Amino acid sequence: MSTPLRVGVAGLGTIGGGTVRLLRENADLITARCGRPVTVVAVAERDRERAASVDIGDAELLDDGLALAGRDDVDVVVELIGGHGGIALNLARQALQAEKHVVTANKAMIAHHGQELASAAEASGVTLAFEAAVAGGIPILKAIRESLAANRIRRVYGIFNGTCNYILTVMRDSGRPFADILAEAQALGYAEADPTFDVDGIDAAHKTAILAALAFGRRVDLHAVRVAGIRDLSPVDQMVAAELGYCVKLLGVAEDTGKGLVQRVEPCLVAADSPVARVDGVFNAVVVDADFVDRTVYQGRGAGAEPTASAVVGDLIDIARSGGWHAFGLPAESLGQAEAAPAEALSGRFYLRFAPSKREDATAGIAAALHREGVSIDNLFGDRAPGAVIVTTAPAEGTAVARACAATAGAMALAEAPVRMRIEEF
Amino acid sequence: MSTPLRVGVAGLGTIGGGTVRLLRENADLITARCGRPVTVVAVAERDRERAASVDIGDAELLDDGLALAGRDDVDVVVELIGGHGGIALNLARQALQAEKHVVTANKAMIAHHGQELASAAEASGVTLAFEAAVAGGIPILKAIRESLAANRIRRVYGIFNGTCNYILTVMRDSGRPFADILAEAQALGYAEADPTFDVDGIDAAHKTAILAALAFGRRVDLHAVRVAGIRDLSPVDQMVAAELGYCVKLLGVAEDTGKGLVQRVEPCLVAADSPVARVDGVFNAVVVDADFVDRTVYQGRGAGAEPTASAVVGDLIDIARSGGWHAFGLPAESLGQAEAAPAEALSGRFYLRFAPSKREDATAGIAAALHREGVSIDNLFGDRAPGAVIVTTAPAEGTAVARACAATAGAMALAEAPVRMRIEEF
Repeated sequence: MSTPLRVGVAGLGTIGGGTVRLLRENADLITARCGRPVTVVAVAERDRERAASVDIGDAELLDDGLALAGRDDVDVVVELIGGHGGIALNLARQALQAEKHVVTANKAMIAHHGQELASAAEASGVTLAFEAAVAGGIPILKAIRESLAANRIRRVYGIFNGTCNYILTVMRDSGRPFADILAEAQALGYAEADPTFDVDGIDAAHKTAILAALAFGRRVDLHAVRVAGIRDLSPVDQMVAAELGYCVKLLGVAEDTGKGLVQRVEPCLVAADSPVARVDGVFNAVVVDADFVDRTVYQGRGAGAEPTASAVVGDLIDIARSGGWHAFGLPAESLGQAEAAPAEALSGRFYLRFAPSKREDATAGIAAALHREGVSIDNLFGDRAPGAVIVTTAPAEGTAVARACAATAGAMALAEAPVRMRIEEF
Repeated sequence: MSTPLRVGVAGLGTIGGGTVRLLRENADLITARCGRPVTVVAVAERDRERAASVDIGDAELLDDGLALAGRDDVDVVVELIGGHGGIALNLARQALQAEKHVVTANKAMIAHHGQELASAAEASGVTLAFEAAVAGGIPILKAIRESLAANRIRRVYGIFNGTCNYILTVMRDSGRPFADILAEAQALGYAEADPTFDVDGIDAAHKTAILAALAFGRRVDLHAVRVAGIRDLSPVDQMVAAELGYCVKLLGVAEDTGKGLVQRVEPCLVAADSPVARVDGVFNAVVVDADFVDRTVYQGRGAGAEPTASAVVGDLIDIARSGGWHAFGLPAESLGQAEAAPAEALSGRFYLRFAPSKREDATAGIAAALHREGVSIDNLFGDRAPGAVIVTTAPAEGTAVARACAATAGAMALAEAPVRMRIEEF
């Protein structure tokens, strides 16, 4: 048997605990499939109680994650501390500098610092791996980087945040309002105490930016992602969407429009027969549209200790077997800045919901504002919910629709800002 | 730029033509992603007309595929001739013997001779690759072999034959009979002139055997697959299935039952909310149930020039980048024979359709035969189609149900043999 791959794990939270347990429970399989053992030699966790809850076997327990970067007996540092800066980033930088491979589930860190870290990995001749950072257990990054490498990708999109998907699924099925479902999700552990990262779309934006970099061979560029969350949505949106044959989903989308790369995270109406329409609850799905393979779809659990550990250990096995790859599929220095196209400008059909304080004349005012911007109305519903006027438009330029919404908000009293969602054709 | 990977392509049929075209059209991408060009230096095709229809660039055109195995300027032989023996097998053997990698889309050859060829590849230190042999463009073999390698797989199942899936989908949606839809599918090019391989389940059995070998680390064993096709199915089966909340699909299933490995291809009833129920027409889907990642689902086009070429070239890119892997994920010599468990014995619920020549007393006779074998009836429908008595059973041992069907066929005149399908819980 060859020499083991020696691993140091930083952070014994949910994912860290799952990773250590997986490496122990399936050690026989992993050794056979790698041709060598994958051995945890040290773990770092400041929280003694948490550390005591995980059986780390013969591994050494450290307080300081950064110490892993300096150890001669560690080949790979598994960073599971989290946060886009701080200790996680310092550890990744120091480990790569010390010529250790880095495996991480940290989407925020890769979305913010992926290019720097990929370059550092290549300079040291080691691998930076982050399959677990996107869509949990679904092996989508490797599929794009390797399996679909023969293809020119046109679009990658999907459901990347289980919390939002759970809330929207319950909203559709129960008709209960957002705040209610969020509180329940928090009680059930499906949502964080501070839900901002999830419900405002930031988590999905991290994943979209990473997928876009891989799929299009460009530098990861989080700031190019247009982000909207789901706080403003109401059950009436799901109800009217269903009436029209659609379903509201928070999508992350990266697509090459021919005029530049559009990256966006926003709630959208997707047709009931779309491959993402029936992905419900805490599941994630990723759809890749590419020139030769056409459409492939990948579904699975997007979070949780065990699925995420599967992805972390998948990366470790790949490193043990193959020795390495370019983090974004191409040499980091060859990755250009994408020419970004504004998501706002994309043409398409739209779903709009207005909340006029006075119903009288509201529909006429809304119709006039849309007409002034050259936007045709497909449907107008004034009776689906108290105080709501809902419009679906014919295909129109996105900025024209945005201007019409702004004009309406300027011309009449609205109880809340207009809700504007794209009706997707894919 | 490093030295090119030099490829010889045997067979310029649908897939061969697609492969050559893909390698040319996306040459820039492929070179960037591999770090070296992938160059076709020779192609072999006896049919001059077919050869003339493909732009092979500077590649040399040969008559004899076997000549590719002997060429010093070829690193990889791409076998796209087809057939489980004959020239295809000779070419694969000779190429591996001559220390050339072999990439193939030939499921019949791998299902029959996979173990021998994997051993030959390892003896020569080269790679045998066959991603295109299972589920066309869906990168399922690599996902199981590498991405999910940390997991103990419990079950792999799915829709592996687009022709059957197309026929069953049209049967469900139109209520037209099998023979009619088959004739139309043949006219549309969705089915072969001789449809035996597809409609009798043989093609799906090849794929099931290959998936089982990879998922469970055992020698590929085609003869262990229980195979039933879809010729005997009638629109009434889809109609009653729908009434009960199910859909009839031809599934390939490989599962570790704890008492051995069951491999089977047969039409089954799957629940309407199952991940395979909504995979319609010519699409394929593969579901993997594994211990840590839980359920992941992969969908895409299971056939066609371009998706299959995507998989063939994906293998070439992997070879160009990584140098190689074990064909079945583990050293060939370490693969044991699976302890096979008989598919017949599996317990479960069943859907049965009888065609008694005389209706009088038929239901009593059927109920008595089931009762004698200890099989309880959940539903009995005598009025859903002329001359048909349909039964769904409570959970029962498969062999008991089979005996009850045989006893019924012995005890009364039947216009056709009983139809027996499992009602799957997954």
